[in-house]
Amino acid sequence: MRKKISILGSTGSIGRQTLDIISNYPDIFEVVGLAGWENISLLKEQITKFKPKISVIKNEFLAKNLRKGLINLNSTKVYWGIDGLVRLSTLEEVDVVLVAITGIASLVPTLEAIKCKKKIALASKEAIVAAGEMLIKEARARDSIIIPIDSEHSAIFQCLKNEPQNNIEKIILTASGGSLYNLTESILKNVSVEDALNHPNWVMGKKVSIDSATLMNKGLEVIEAKWLFNVPSNKIEIVIHPQSYIHSMVQFIDGTIIAQLSEHDMKIPIQYALFYPERMNNNYSRLDLTRIGQLTFKKPNFSKFPCIKLAYQALDANGTMPAVLNGANEIAVKAFLNKQINITDIPRIIQNIMKEHKTIPNPSINDILEADHWARNNALNLIANKNK
Amino acid sequence: MRKKISILGSTGSIGRQTLDIISNYPDIFEVVGLAGWENISLLKEQITKFKPKISVIKNEFLAKNLRKGLINLNSTKVYWGIDGLVRLSTLEEVDVVLVAITGIASLVPTLEAIKCKKKIALASKEAIVAAGEMLIKEARARDSIIIPIDSEHSAIFQCLKNEPQNNIEKIILTASGGSLYNLTESILKNVSVEDALNHPNWVMGKKVSIDSATLMNKGLEVIEAKWLFNVPSNKIEIVIHPQSYIHSMVQFIDGTIIAQLSEHDMKIPIQYALFYPERMNNNYSRLDLTRIGQLTFKKPNFSKFPCIKLAYQALDANGTMPAVLNGANEIAVKAFLNKQINITDIPRIIQNIMKEHKTIPNPSINDILEADHWARNNALNLIANKNK
Repeated sequence: MRKKISILGSTGSIGRQTLDIISNYPDIFEVVGLAGWENISLLKEQITKFKPKISVIKNEFLAKNLRKGLINLNSTKVYWGIDGLVRLSTLEEVDVVLVAITGIASLVPTLEAIKCKKKIALASKEAIVAAGEMLIKEARARDSIIIPIDSEHSAIFQCLKNEPQNNIEKIILTASGGSLYNLTESILKNVSVEDALNHPNWVMGKKVSIDSATLMNKGLEVIEAKWLFNVPSNKIEIVIHPQSYIHSMVQFIDGTIIAQLSEHDMKIPIQYALFYPERMNNNYSRLDLTRIGQLTFKKPNFSKFPCIKLAYQALDANGTMPAVLNGANEIAVKAFLNKQINITDIPRIIQNIMKEHKTIPNPSINDILEADHWARNNALNLIANKNK
Repeated sequence: MRKKISILGSTGSIGRQTLDIISNYPDIFEVVGLAGWENISLLKEQITKFKPKISVIKNEFLAKNLRKGLINLNSTKVYWGIDGLVRLSTLEEVDVVLVAITGIASLVPTLEAIKCKKKIALASKEAIVAAGEMLIKEARARDSIIIPIDSEHSAIFQCLKNEPQNNIEKIILTASGGSLYNLTESILKNVSVEDALNHPNWVMGKKVSIDSATLMNKGLEVIEAKWLFNVPSNKIEIVIHPQSYIHSMVQFIDGTIIAQLSEHDMKIPIQYALFYPERMNNNYSRLDLTRIGQLTFKKPNFSKFPCIKLAYQALDANGTMPAVLNGANEIAVKAFLNKQINITDIPRIIQNIMKEHKTIPNPSINDILEADHWARNNALNLIANKNK
C-alpha cells in the first residue's frame, strides 16, 4: 500500500522539492492533500499532476478562482484558510503530513495532525518555536513522530539515531553565519535588502534568508532543538561553520562527536523524512571533501548578532515568550524587506517587545496565539511610530 | 556481576591504557587474564595490582622469572607463548577478550576466542588482515561480536550503528598522512628512523608509526574495513586529513555522510569497546572545533606511497595474499628500524614477495600461517642479499 501524504505549503521551496521527490516514486507515495497559499497558478498545476482529494488555499476568494480553473477536474475538493489546513492535516487516511508553511499558520494544523497520531515531516520552524513544549508533549502522548526537515535538525536526528537521550552531552548547531557575518557593525547597520538576501550557501525563501543574516534563524533552531531533542538550552551550542557542509553535530558523554554532512541540497533531508526509517538511494550530487579542501569553525559573535541571545532568553523564560520572539521577528523581518527599518533594528524591536511581555507559564494554545498576536501588533506599532 | 576480561598485550600502549580505564571501574570489570610479552617488570606490577587468575608471557624462561618474582602472590598462574595466549583468550569465565598484541601472534588466540563466542575488543590489525574472511565467518557463525579499537574502525563502527549494511555507499577512511606526507620522493628515500617515528598526531608504538609513515597502516585498515564491515574494496576510499580529528566517515546511499570525531585519545575508542553497547561518561578532554579552526582534506598520493596500492592488490587477490603482505611488511619495517634498509625499500620488498607468491584461495589457518612464515623468510633473505 502506498504512503498517503498531505503537503502543507506545496507551492513553497520545500513543498516543490517534496513533490519533485514524490513524483519519482509513484508506487510509494500518494498525494492526498495539497495546500498552497497565494500562488494559485502553481497550485493548479500541482493539482492537475498529483490529483489530490483535497486542496487548500488562503481564502474564499482564491478558493473560488481555484475551483473555476479546475472545472474539468472532478477530483479535488477545495477548502481555504486555517480550517482548510486542519482538514488537510487530519484527514483520516493520511499517513504523513509534511508541514512547510512559513509563519505561525503552521501551529494549529500541526497540533491537530499530532492529535490524530500522524507522522509529521516538519519544515516549519515557527510551530515548534512558539509551542514546542505543547507539541512535543502531545506527540509523546499520542505516539506521533516528528521528523525534522531543517538540515540542522535532520542532522541531529540522524546523529542521535538509536542513542539513548541521556548519552547526549551537547548539541552543536552549525551556522553558516549568513550573508553578513564578516561585516563590521557600522556597515551592517546600513546593509541593503538585496545584500541581506544573498545567502552564501543555500537558496531559500526571503524570510529564512533574513533570519539567516541576523542569525535569528540559528536562535530559532536552538529553541527547536531544545524541544525536538529534549535537551536544556545550556547543552545547545552554536558554532560558525561558513561552508555549511557539516549540518550539525552531537557530542556524547564519552567525548565522541557524531556529525552529519552532505552537499547543500534540501532534497536530502526532505527525502530522509519522507522515507524514514529507511534510507532511499538517490543520484543527488555527493559531497567530496577533497574537492572542498577545508572546513572552518569559529565561535559566534553574540554582541554583533544579538538575535541569538534573545532566542536563548526567550527559551529560558519559556511559556509564551518564544511565541512573542517569533511573532515580533516575523513583523520586523517584513518591515526590513519593505525597507521600513534597518536590519539592526530587528533585534532592537524584538527586545523591546520581549521586555514588555509578561510571560504566561504553561500556556494554552489560545494563550500562545494571543501572545503571538499581541507581539505582532506591538511590533507594527513600534515600526509605525519609528517611521512617523 | 562484573564483566570478566582478558587482556592480550597488557604491557603495550593499548593494554596500559585499557588497564588505566578499568582501574576506574572496579565494580564493573574484573581482570581475569593478563598477557605481556617481554616487559616482565611492568607485567609484575600489573599482576600485583589487578590479581588476574592467569598471566602469560613470551617463553618458558621469562615465565620462570615471572613466577619467582611473584613468589608471595598465590593468585596467578603463569603460562607462556601462543598456547598461553589461547588459554587466556578462551578461559570459560571470560566475557571480553581485548586483543592488543602487535604482529601475527594475535591470530590464533583471536580465532579461538571467537570459537568460544567471546566478545572481542580488537586493537590488533594483523589478525583481521591476515585471516579476515575466516575470522568474520567464524564470528558470524558463533554469534561472537568484534568491536574494533583502532580509532578509524571504531569511528566507522559508530557511524554504522544500527544502519542496515546495504545502506552503505562508501566507507571513507581518514589518514593523517603520517610523519612524511609532504616530503618529496627524493628526500623521502633518505629519511631517518627518528624522523619517520615522529607521528604528527598520535603517540604510538614503533611498528604502527612506521606503518603510518609509509601509509601501509591505511592499507591494512582498508583490508580490516572490508572484513569488519563487509564492504567491497572499491567502496573503501582513503582521504588525507592531516589533523586526524575526523576518525573516519560512512557515506550512505542517500548522499548523507556520518562522521565520528574526537580528540586524539585512544582511551575514547578503548572505552567505547569496553562498555559497548553503552556509552560511559568520562572526563577526557573534549574536541573544540572553534579552537582547532580548520579541518583539511586531500586525495592520497598513491604513487609516492605505493604501500596503499599493494594493500588493495592483496585484498583483491585475497586468499593467502594479505597474510603475505602483512608478513613481508613486518620484516621490512623491522629492517628499517634496524637501519638495514631505506624507508622506500619497504614497498619494494613487499611487492617483490607478493609477485612471487601463489595465492591459495580459501586458505586454512595453517595455509595462512605458512604463507606468513614464507613471506617473512623471503623478506629476510631479500634484505640480507641487499646488504651483502
